[in-house]
Amino acid sequence: MSSAPLFALPSHAADLARIEAALIESVHTPDPYLNDIASHLIVAGGKRLRPVLAVVAAQVAGPGDALVHERSVQGGIACELVQTGSLYHDDVMDEADTRRGVDTVNAKWGNLQAILAGDFLLSRASEIAASLGTEVAGLLARTIGRLCEGQIEELRHTYNAARPEASYLSSISGKTASLFATAARIGGLVADLDRPLIDALTEYGEAFGMVFQIADDLLDISATDEQLGKPAGHDMVEGVYTLPVLRTLQAGGVAAVELLSLLGKPLVGVEQEKALAIVRSNAGVVAATGVAREWAVRAESACDRLPASAATEVLRAAPAALLASI
Amino acid sequence: MSSAPLFALPSHAADLARIEAALIESVHTPDPYLNDIASHLIVAGGKRLRPVLAVVAAQVAGPGDALVHERSVQGGIACELVQTGSLYHDDVMDEADTRRGVDTVNAKWGNLQAILAGDFLLSRASEIAASLGTEVAGLLARTIGRLCEGQIEELRHTYNAARPEASYLSSISGKTASLFATAARIGGLVADLDRPLIDALTEYGEAFGMVFQIADDLLDISATDEQLGKPAGHDMVEGVYTLPVLRTLQAGGVAAVELLSLLGKPLVGVEQEKALAIVRSNAGVVAATGVAREWAVRAESACDRLPASAATEVLRAAPAALLASI
Repeated sequence: MSSAPLFALPSHAADLARIEAALIESVHTPDPYLNDIASHLIVAGGKRLRPVLAVVAAQVAGPGDALVHERSVQGGIACELVQTGSLYHDDVMDEADTRRGVDTVNAKWGNLQAILAGDFLLSRASEIAASLGTEVAGLLARTIGRLCEGQIEELRHTYNAARPEASYLSSISGKTASLFATAARIGGLVADLDRPLIDALTEYGEAFGMVFQIADDLLDISATDEQLGKPAGHDMVEGVYTLPVLRTLQAGGVAAVELLSLLGKPLVGVEQEKALAIVRSNAGVVAATGVAREWAVRAESACDRLPASAATEVLRAAPAALLASI
Repeated sequence: MSSAPLFALPSHAADLARIEAALIESVHTPDPYLNDIASHLIVAGGKRLRPVLAVVAAQVAGPGDALVHERSVQGGIACELVQTGSLYHDDVMDEADTRRGVDTVNAKWGNLQAILAGDFLLSRASEIAASLGTEVAGLLARTIGRLCEGQIEELRHTYNAARPEASYLSSISGKTASLFATAARIGGLVADLDRPLIDALTEYGEAFGMVFQIADDLLDISATDEQLGKPAGHDMVEGVYTLPVLRTLQAGGVAAVELLSLLGKPLVGVEQEKALAIVRSNAGVVAATGVAREWAVRAESACDRLPASAATEVLRAAPAALLASI
């Protein structure tokens, strides 16, 4: 994906600097050992899309005062901490060695440390959410639950070539879109916007998150190993059949029959290349891109219900920019 | 330990039935697969000490109304869900096969499922805490953080025979006593007691939790394999040197020298039996029991600052009953 920021207000650089500082503060603990582990992936960087989305969402009715701004930063980093904590646990589950160009926590310190530090990051996220009121606290807790539900849904269908598309959509809504929805909603809540605006922001975040995950799944198929920093088709090899794969199967014909004969088990060597070539050269990629485009339209439509403002225009432009990057 | 309930108000059976029902409700999710996994260890049973403590703590100034009672049940099950979620993660870390007489979640479904379902239980705990207000939500989140800190502290000193006693005490305060303290404190908070009473309940819970963990660590040394349902001395074998071990080393003499020569590495076969025999037959067990007794006195002293009531008497009697069971 492109490295240009997707959500860039004029204050973007300053916002990002504040987000970085607040993130480091948020995981501080007196124990230097835990401190190192808990801050490891945060220090390694990241686009901070969720915190920036929360900050921009809080400004759709105009720039708020300094307190609203800081509360949107805090709400955003609560979402980023949930995301990072999930990555700690994901990397244990995937036995991953590298992430964001550095060793994973499990590779560097061990699985036990990665599980505990992931829990620690989730607890810090909940603590920040509690400081923003019971509605934000309840919302973030429900969202963590939805992340788990989405991942469990994915796990249930591992190596299932008959996985219904509804299962895919429900899984990515839970594991990815829900946290974008919550970041945008928290922005609206801390800015004390009217309920219809808060709901429009939530729908925007959900739809943007769907575009984000479908784009990510498309990249896993279409990008080169070098672009990805990991082998292309990794999800398919591991039995996670995403939208381009499901759409290739749905389209029928020789390609679908050939692909079906390869799926249902771990792919190795030449089979992996063959399966990847089938998905890349058939209608599934185009069809999946079409679905992502539909979600982008929904995100843009949600912006029609927001006040005209610089922040709303930033939100409106982001889904198309994301699509253009794949 | 004895099976007589430690905290038994006259309403104990009804309270326990309500706690069981509320626990099952709390983990309900539409996905039957996740539902099975998330309720597995809850259905397997448990003494529910933390929820019962919350319910009793809410009644130290007299039985409250039905709303206060239900809020104390909810606060208590939030603590129980934190405890159960931690056990899901512990069992992955320990590669444990059985718990509460049933297969562990990791053994039955796999590590990925156990990590995710543990996260899910923590998220449900946070959601319930949020429904009880920002103070309870913040408190529970901080407590989850303290659990992680306590476990990380233990992990840092694995196989360290020079582990300072302060490290042991700080670790069990974080990993065990903090959640008892929080259960008691939440009881006081939902009953809207005066702050000095809430603080006395918190001190009680912390001190009771210290007795509980030291008693558990003593049992690991002194009980038979049959009583424990696992090999005695398991902690020592795995490099977790608890108070009876540390006190045996501190006492010096031949026993300390012999024990020291065995520690610092995994213990197998005859070495394990030898190390266990040394700790069992020397002054460490008596000294550790003395420390547990000091914490029991602190818990009882905290009761002196609570109103005279049936609930206060239940709290006052529990630490001695716990000590008598080891």
